[in-house]
Amino acid sequence: MEKANKKFPVLEIFGPTVQGEGMVIGQKTMFVRTAGCDYSCSWCDSAFTWDGSAKDEIRRLTAEEILDELKAAGGNLFEHVTISGGNPALLKNLSELVDLLHSEGIKVALETQGSIWQDWFMDIDDLTLSPKPPSSGMKPNMGILDDIIEKLSKSQYDHSLKVVIFDKEDLKFAEDLHTRYPKVPFYLQTGNDQVHEEKDERLIPNLIARYEWLIDQVMENSRLNQVRVLPQLHTYVWGNKRGV
Amino acid sequence: MEKANKKFPVLEIFGPTVQGEGMVIGQKTMFVRTAGCDYSCSWCDSAFTWDGSAKDEIRRLTAEEILDELKAAGGNLFEHVTISGGNPALLKNLSELVDLLHSEGIKVALETQGSIWQDWFMDIDDLTLSPKPPSSGMKPNMGILDDIIEKLSKSQYDHSLKVVIFDKEDLKFAEDLHTRYPKVPFYLQTGNDQVHEEKDERLIPNLIARYEWLIDQVMENSRLNQVRVLPQLHTYVWGNKRGV
Ligand code: SF4
Ligand code: SF4
Repeated sequence: MEKANKKFPVLEIFGPTVQGEGMVIGQKTMFVRTAGCDYSCSWCDSAFTWDGSAKDEIRRLTAEEILDELKAAGGNLFEHVTISGGNPALLKNLSELVDLLHSEGIKVALETQGSIWQDWFMDIDDLTLSPKPPSSGMKPNMGILDDIIEKLSKSQYDHSLKVVIFDKEDLKFAEDLHTRYPKVPFYLQTGNDQVHEEKDERLIPNLIARYEWLIDQVMENSRLNQVRVLPQLHTYVWGNKRGV
Repeated sequence: MEKANKKFPVLEIFGPTVQGEGMVIGQKTMFVRTAGCDYSCSWCDSAFTWDGSAKDEIRRLTAEEILDELKAAGGNLFEHVTISGGNPALLKNLSELVDLLHSEGIKVALETQGSIWQDWFMDIDDLTLSPKPPSSGMKPNMGILDDIIEKLSKSQYDHSLKVVIFDKEDLKFAEDLHTRYPKVPFYLQTGNDQVHEEKDERLIPNLIARYEWLIDQVMENSRLNQVRVLPQLHTYVWGNKRGV
């Protein structure tokens, strides 16, 4: 039996805002961003969660303290919380937070790359598995992923696969993944290669052009007939700003 | 017993492209646009389907002929077809097309304003009901909508409500609708007040600003905590162009 009131490393709590990506794109939600990742993707847009640059901002909070801060920031203006990272699947006892949110009638979404299984995956309302393609420099463990997908097939909630695409090699990786797990809703997402660009008028046309490129690639590929192709919508509105 | 091989008034068959709106936003799909509408919304972005301006382009096609044209345009590059209008719910015998597509392993999405019930609604994989808000100049019949929502609650497939928002009065309409049907997934969508603007560099910043306005409105409204807020994504990529 685990001791209750575990503390979790938290970097950001903010919202309400809209989810800009993936299976619940557009959803009104709060965000909790946990610190720490077992990967180090070349193009990580949240590198501050693991590269030491925001080390002094990490706070260790209990589930109750996280809920209090969500309420302080969001008042009565939310019924959905998204947990992101870093990789929140590093946190074995995160069920304490998930259960607490559920007890308040709040739905929970979570994103992880799928490198680690946690039993509380079964309780996440909207679970996004985002295996990293070759351009990231990482190499997913397919055995672990097989196991995760198999377990989730018995979940009562929704899950999906999402792959960020920078180039044709990434697209090949996504094709193989979609073929391997044909029953799992599959999302392709444009990569952002300018995560430090502060000028929206330079960033946004580039992101729209990348989205158009990705659409073109998917349209001409008969192995990708069932997929959904999406941008990171929040970057169109807020550029690379954090905490919105 | 209806005679088979009914003919349907068709204005456009194109794709594959991505669905730019609503519950399956991003989905790779073909489009079939039917002619005719029982409404005449002030801001209709498909007015050519009912205002006579494209009268000479309307063709009367059987379900088989529509499938043939879908295959001619999309080859083996599609497994999803979206039927839009106009109002395709005017077409009593559209089940012939829906059933034919299903028999080919193709999923079917459809959008209608919810002014008319058809039994084949129960067979649509992704059904969007889009009741028109006050700014349209139309007045939805709530009794008919109640009946449609009640029947769809027994469907094995997915359905959702989507409301286009131009102003605060529209938002109030959407709030009331969401409160009336709290269990139905609810989407808010930015209105496009420049459906004839051909310059993307004028159109897109305006659409993004409207999206940001809508997000702000929803974020501060506790009656809209569960909704999803989306733009018309295709306008960011293709502006007001038809047939993409
Ligand atoms: S898995 Fe995610 S958080 Fe971790 S390094 Fe990769 S992109 Fe960044
Ligand atoms: S219901 Fe749709 S197609 Fe008909 S007039 Fe209104 S916006 Fe146009």
